[in-house]
Amino acid sequence: MRPELDPIVFRYEARDGDLDAVRSIVASTGFFRPDEIAVAVELVGERLAKGDASGYHFVFAESAGAVLGYACYGPIACTVGSYDLYWIAVDAAAQGRGLGRRLLAESERLIRGRGGRRIYIETSGRPQYAPTRAFYDCCGYKTAAILEDFYDADDDKVILAKSLIDSVSHSVRAGRE
Amino acid sequence: MRPELDPIVFRYEARDGDLDAVRSIVASTGFFRPDEIAVAVELVGERLAKGDASGYHFVFAESAGAVLGYACYGPIACTVGSYDLYWIAVDAAAQGRGLGRRLLAESERLIRGRGGRRIYIETSGRPQYAPTRAFYDCCGYKTAAILEDFYDADDDKVILAKSLIDSVSHSVRAGRE
Repeated sequence: MRPELDPIVFRYEARDGDLDAVRSIVASTGFFRPDEIAVAVELVGERLAKGDASGYHFVFAESAGAVLGYACYGPIACTVGSYDLYWIAVDAAAQGRGLGRRLLAESERLIRGRGGRRIYIETSGRPQYAPTRAFYDCCGYKTAAILEDFYDADDDKVILAKSLIDSVSHSVRAGRE
Repeated sequence: MRPELDPIVFRYEARDGDLDAVRSIVASTGFFRPDEIAVAVELVGERLAKGDASGYHFVFAESAGAVLGYACYGPIACTVGSYDLYWIAVDAAAQGRGLGRRLLAESERLIRGRGGRRIYIETSGRPQYAPTRAFYDCCGYKTAAILEDFYDADDDKVILAKSLIDSVSHSVRAGRE
């Protein structure tokens, strides 16, 4: 029998300890280069230093006091209601429990609450990112653009987008049926 | 007879006075909202405060000591050789002299010198930006992607791109003929 798992609790305010937690989570995935890990940690630092003015908002997923995963999103400057999902990562040891999907859904709920209309996610077109793209596809994100050789030669940027307005109207319609 | 114009001199280091110069130039174009003008000025402030570490590089076009236009570009984090051209603007009173084109060419020369492979420019798909898009088209930029409703409902983002590697090899070939 699978051991009982402690419930997941979401937390939205960053703490000093999240600098290490985020470094550890992002590194554990084995997916990111050192310079990318540094950027992930830097965004937490910006949040701690400037609060909402940083433009970075977080959702931390905790269980029994340990941070197992997190998402980072924020409004895109000079747009009305467009948001970037900058990071979403789940500790390697906590993967396979649907935590990524819950973090994404919670981020979408918060973005919608802030009047967000659209969410953008940027990822790599390289074969090793196929599971990442499949995850987002599964969560309703569509490929909006492919920028060839953006990250490097033979490493395209794939821009995924999801309209929150459509999903809201769909759920309203569904609720009325 | 057209009066003799003072020659244009390029300057690359930002000065305190550029905060006002950039605000004035960007506002004079009548093209940008107050929040966009604030972002333009903020990038100069970042440059003054952090130097190269800001990630923002500038080209100022001066004539007789007055700043008539400028461009701002920088490397895109987590990419190998991809650069964003963040801003290019020419004072309304100095337009029509090919200054925009010279600022763009000078920016490309500097980016190439830093090992840049590709330059990206983001602009709006709205009709009023048609001359902007025509300018970039004329300078060799191709539409790489269109993100619908990105800036606002019915206000798409158009991503233009130019490969510097191609233009280098073309000019080498041309030089050999």
